[in-house]
Amino acid sequence: MITILRLGHRYKRDERISTHCGLVARAFGASSIIYSGEHDQHLIDSINRVSENWGSGFSVSYEKNWRKVIQDFKGTKVHLTMYGMPFEKQLSKFNTKRNILIIIGSEKVPGEVYQMADYNIAVYNQPHSEVAALAIILDRLNKKPKLKSAKKKIVPQERGKKVIEK
Amino acid sequence: MITILRLGHRYKRDERISTHCGLVARAFGASSIIYSGEHDQHLIDSINRVSENWGSGFSVSYEKNWRKVIQDFKGTKVHLTMYGMPFEKQLSKFNTKRNILIIIGSEKVPGEVYQMADYNIAVYNQPHSEVAALAIILDRLNKKPKLKSAKKKIVPQERGKKVIEK
Repeated sequence: MITILRLGHRYKRDERISTHCGLVARAFGASSIIYSGEHDQHLIDSINRVSENWGSGFSVSYEKNWRKVIQDFKGTKVHLTMYGMPFEKQLSKFNTKRNILIIIGSEKVPGEVYQMADYNIAVYNQPHSEVAALAIILDRLNKKPKLKSAKKKIVPQERGKKVIEK
Repeated sequence: MITILRLGHRYKRDERISTHCGLVARAFGASSIIYSGEHDQHLIDSINRVSENWGSGFSVSYEKNWRKVIQDFKGTKVHLTMYGMPFEKQLSKFNTKRNILIIIGSEKVPGEVYQMADYNIAVYNQPHSEVAALAIILDRLNKKPKLKSAKKKIVPQERGKKVIEK
């Protein structure tokens, strides 16, 4: 099971990036995302709405005390940061049978996160996007999402859109 | 060479997602990004500032007439959409020696884009993020960025941050 911890969410300013983090976590096979920073019920509701429509089995929550989330987690704790070690070599070190906590920051990540994580890893040592870094890591970990009870389902098309609604 | 065309940028509302698209394009080896929609000089400047600091060789521009960009492009035109065909099979069909135009939309993509593209492909038929979809496609196309004259360079660390400044 893979859990995502999104640190330092800021209401309004981070709304869309944090939403994309949640949707990527869901679509790429994580089990849950925990948001920290400012409490934003709208954000949580919007991810849950996607699950209602497109398939459930992914959980979203808010936790003010992110330190406790990291401390109490049983499994491998991985912090994604552009300052970390190149991810390709690091991923091979994980025991992927253990639970994994993937920690993603927003603008400023407290220094202690680098100490609390088992691994600080970088998807390239260049500034880009926590959304992209998360997608790449989940893609390489290759979990398939187990989504159920979808109201809507896409039938892939070469041109245009086809959605079946139950 | 890979060019990204970002459609329908909206000033303010899309600022951060569009920035992430540009930074991902740059860090994952595309040559350039063309923004369409509302003209946003702040967005262009912010990507250029990243290139100045972290390595240049990536170009950013604005083009109001996105139809012309697609029509005039010599090479394979790929539109990323959750309604498209699963990407893994589609990618193997590309001639990766040709130039590639990757088209990414924001909220609503005009229907004609689906007709103008050579391929409409989906990184999973689930709602998530154009930032993530772009990262996954560029990762699979496996171009390495050729960035030069960086003022700042990260020395990867197991804990903490180390940046060399020239």
